[in-house]
Amino acid sequence: MGLGIYSGLDRCAANYAPLTPISFLARAADVFPDHSAIVDAATGQTWRETADRCRNLAAALCQLGAAEGRTVSILAPNVPAMMEAHFAVPMTGAVLNTINTRLDARAVAYILDHGESTILLVDPECAPLASEALSLAQASPVIIDLPDAEFPGVAIGTADWDTLAKTEAVFTPIVPADEFAPIALSYTSGTTGAPKGVVTHHRGAYLNAVSNVLAWDLGHHPRYLWTLPMFHCNGWCFPWTLAAVGGTAICLRRVREDAIFKALREDAVTHFCAAPIVLSMLANAHETLRTGLTGTVRVMPAAATPPAALHPRMEAMVVDITLVYVLTETFGPSVVAAPQPGWGDLTPAARASVMARQGVRYPLQEGVMIADPTTKTPVPADGATIGEIFMRGNIVMMGYLKDRDATETALDGGWFATGDLGVMHPDGYLQIRDRSKDIIISGGENISSIEIEDVLYTHPDVVTAAVVARPDPRWGESPCAFVELRADARADAAALIAHCRANMAHFKIPRHIVFGPIPKTSTGKIQKFALRARAATEG
Amino acid sequence: MGLGIYSGLDRCAANYAPLTPISFLARAADVFPDHSAIVDAATGQTWRETADRCRNLAAALCQLGAAEGRTVSILAPNVPAMMEAHFAVPMTGAVLNTINTRLDARAVAYILDHGESTILLVDPECAPLASEALSLAQASPVIIDLPDAEFPGVAIGTADWDTLAKTEAVFTPIVPADEFAPIALSYTSGTTGAPKGVVTHHRGAYLNAVSNVLAWDLGHHPRYLWTLPMFHCNGWCFPWTLAAVGGTAICLRRVREDAIFKALREDAVTHFCAAPIVLSMLANAHETLRTGLTGTVRVMPAAATPPAALHPRMEAMVVDITLVYVLTETFGPSVVAAPQPGWGDLTPAARASVMARQGVRYPLQEGVMIADPTTKTPVPADGATIGEIFMRGNIVMMGYLKDRDATETALDGGWFATGDLGVMHPDGYLQIRDRSKDIIISGGENISSIEIEDVLYTHPDVVTAAVVARPDPRWGESPCAFVELRADARADAAALIAHCRANMAHFKIPRHIVFGPIPKTSTGKIQKFALRARAATEG
Repeated sequence: MGLGIYSGLDRCAANYAPLTPISFLARAADVFPDHSAIVDAATGQTWRETADRCRNLAAALCQLGAAEGRTVSILAPNVPAMMEAHFAVPMTGAVLNTINTRLDARAVAYILDHGESTILLVDPECAPLASEALSLAQASPVIIDLPDAEFPGVAIGTADWDTLAKTEAVFTPIVPADEFAPIALSYTSGTTGAPKGVVTHHRGAYLNAVSNVLAWDLGHHPRYLWTLPMFHCNGWCFPWTLAAVGGTAICLRRVREDAIFKALREDAVTHFCAAPIVLSMLANAHETLRTGLTGTVRVMPAAATPPAALHPRMEAMVVDITLVYVLTETFGPSVVAAPQPGWGDLTPAARASVMARQGVRYPLQEGVMIADPTTKTPVPADGATIGEIFMRGNIVMMGYLKDRDATETALDGGWFATGDLGVMHPDGYLQIRDRSKDIIISGGENISSIEIEDVLYTHPDVVTAAVVARPDPRWGESPCAFVELRADARADAAALIAHCRANMAHFKIPRHIVFGPIPKTSTGKIQKFALRARAATEG
Repeated sequence: MGLGIYSGLDRCAANYAPLTPISFLARAADVFPDHSAIVDAATGQTWRETADRCRNLAAALCQLGAAEGRTVSILAPNVPAMMEAHFAVPMTGAVLNTINTRLDARAVAYILDHGESTILLVDPECAPLASEALSLAQASPVIIDLPDAEFPGVAIGTADWDTLAKTEAVFTPIVPADEFAPIALSYTSGTTGAPKGVVTHHRGAYLNAVSNVLAWDLGHHPRYLWTLPMFHCNGWCFPWTLAAVGGTAICLRRVREDAIFKALREDAVTHFCAAPIVLSMLANAHETLRTGLTGTVRVMPAAATPPAALHPRMEAMVVDITLVYVLTETFGPSVVAAPQPGWGDLTPAARASVMARQGVRYPLQEGVMIADPTTKTPVPADGATIGEIFMRGNIVMMGYLKDRDATETALDGGWFATGDLGVMHPDGYLQIRDRSKDIIISGGENISSIEIEDVLYTHPDVVTAAVVARPDPRWGESPCAFVELRADARADAAALIAHCRANMAHFKIPRHIVFGPIPKTSTGKIQKFALRARAATEG
């Protein structure tokens, strides 16, 4: 058809700027220069100071080799330097690779090699891990220490972050000509297999940073507590979100219950994100730790496995919960349990039930569906038919680094295949039923391990529950439950099975219950592959 | 440099979707299907119903000739059909041309011809105007009536909006392959000269719709009252904003003080935008109309000429005000008086003073500066040096339709030249001093007419004030003030001049004061060109 009379009105420097979250830092520095940007136990800095430091840092990183197409890695907990790296590194055109600090040296070496790191930023607490990893790696990146008053530690680098930040430089951020350019490289902390390097882009980081504001009704100047690791999917884009709304990042080196409760009481925290394991820890914390909370704190937990029973316990703690479904491939949250007007009138149990569903697509994501994995035909919205969860839109990764096959498989046919299974409810809210590999097929019936876990969580003695398939000579597979009990618990296997019998179809009741500690990944994900191995042998 | 190891991870249908505000309608229908979308005095509809109707309408419009590169015009007040047109027309790929209903037939005919309208949508109240315009125009668009229970009127078209909306159709929205594609054509209601056709794009409409949420902290499910005409710069993108946040559009055929106060009292209105003239009307409304207001209503006035004195008057009416600076070329608001933490502690007068400045760049706009018009060097941020206001970023128009010269002039050198003059304060907040042509040059000194108007507005007897240049044999030009007084006012020219003498440098004091009605455009802009003519002859 063509643009007819509208032809010839082209984009130019006045009316087109690539979308990149580094714009948010520039605006925060211009508009809220004196507002607190980043604080930790020892210090604090404003948005103007943060922008000045990041400009100097970006200039220095360029001198040390950072550039378009290159990787700058960082090994650090949630310290101020980690926030700064989320701006300073993209400002050089390079790709920010945050590394999970709880990995072992071999895994870190793999990442440094696979991502071909040019520069590695190291927090003193991570220096021993970094040194060991570097001794194993082929890569030999320039090392920069991230000194921290709270944890003096050992310097292993040839340069020092704070010195670089204070060295005045003239520098203009290198904005990618194409906004669909790589901004971050995050290796999935998957529960099995070799890690894959998820490459995300400036456009999606910008849009998801904004989407976080819309999804959460974040408001102006939130005081955001960092319990979610920033090395986990760039803290779901919240470093950039905080710049967009002139918020304050309250950094926390160690995610411990006493430190969190202290911050909630003393730092006027308004919001935090958390893995389910953190919420569980808080809900089960000793009464003395939980006293003195006043204002409502809003929490966004990433609930790949929603512990529905936590809601009432958490809500009693002046906490307001918004569940999200998080995948590294979708820049973090891509589905949110958006509350409907009217949910406030439900009974607590009914409200917990609707709020325990992962929900609807994120505000600026284009599409989410539950569909047949092969035909990509959506399943009926009946809350029962299980299909694979697919997503599409601007908040989907570029692909997996150096893995064309995996990229093509994941992004085939116009949709990103999440590998997760779920159902669509009649009101358009989706609920996860399982990772594809976690579904239990018993006597030809699909059994959702999450559904069984949800029931187990409603038993007052259960702290953690994980259900996996166990080979069964008669049924093919049968559910095996691993359970951690509260310290003063009195329930035994018979009691839990009775509880299940009262709350689910009989063919779904776990045939075995194993008590004891459950292995988890660094991000709190339960390591089902390990449980499956145990179930097969000892269950 | 190249992308190195990151090469080859390309955009595809799974990870890239053109940004267009029609996505917001699809999401609102999916996520908040049963939530009230549009209401007026007679009726109401949900977001699902709105999406269904718009799908049917878009299918019908395509049949009637709507397509990429073509123009669909609409002559209507703020009725539900006007909201629907903001989705149904872009869904066809065509460009939506909202026409100011207060123009005369000749001006409407000019727009239909210049924009080469394929289809014209006509509200019954505008049918006489449309008929007369069509008799003058070369263009012969297909006419579609927009029937309305509130105003039965005359049908002049060959089709009927409501019938088309109810005719079930299978239709997939035509999303532009390039998001930098035209979405709307708005003729500037300039105070002088031939109207120019401002062409805006899908990308900017999407981003500014979101920017409205961030700037205003709009929250979920606002109840938004339409006093700002949607024919004025697409209601500053708020039809799309409301879909993005699942809000409710409360339509108002006539912007009268009784209807507005009734809506504020009875419809739980949370937000509205307004021309300054509307705020002035409300602030000066009779006491009996203003009774019964309870909750705080948030107002975003477009203040090209900020009547600073209105603030205290308005704030007494449980109204919370956020000033914005609006230009058609920037999709509406592009600068906002973002409140700083700490402003709440100021005295009312000091707060009114800081809040009367237009402010800082809109959240998703890239840049704003006050600079020398020729060199584009920023002026000092001293609150005194006058320069031209420039903007750049994704919330700037594609250009002026069929006017390459004006487009190139406006978008030259990487910045959009607004033609407005202002100063930059030390805290980074800009304040408009004048349209370039409204500045008064007296004895070699630049005098801001707005500064004089602001002082006049602080006099309790003044309802409206407008200052223009008057030829002066000695000084070249001198300020001449036109003033509308309150009905029970007692001030005379001497009293107002004494008031000015007490509040400004003496060379700025108006030498002439003329009392009586002041001519305004349909959008409430004072017609300074008419006042200048009067000042030259009778002032």
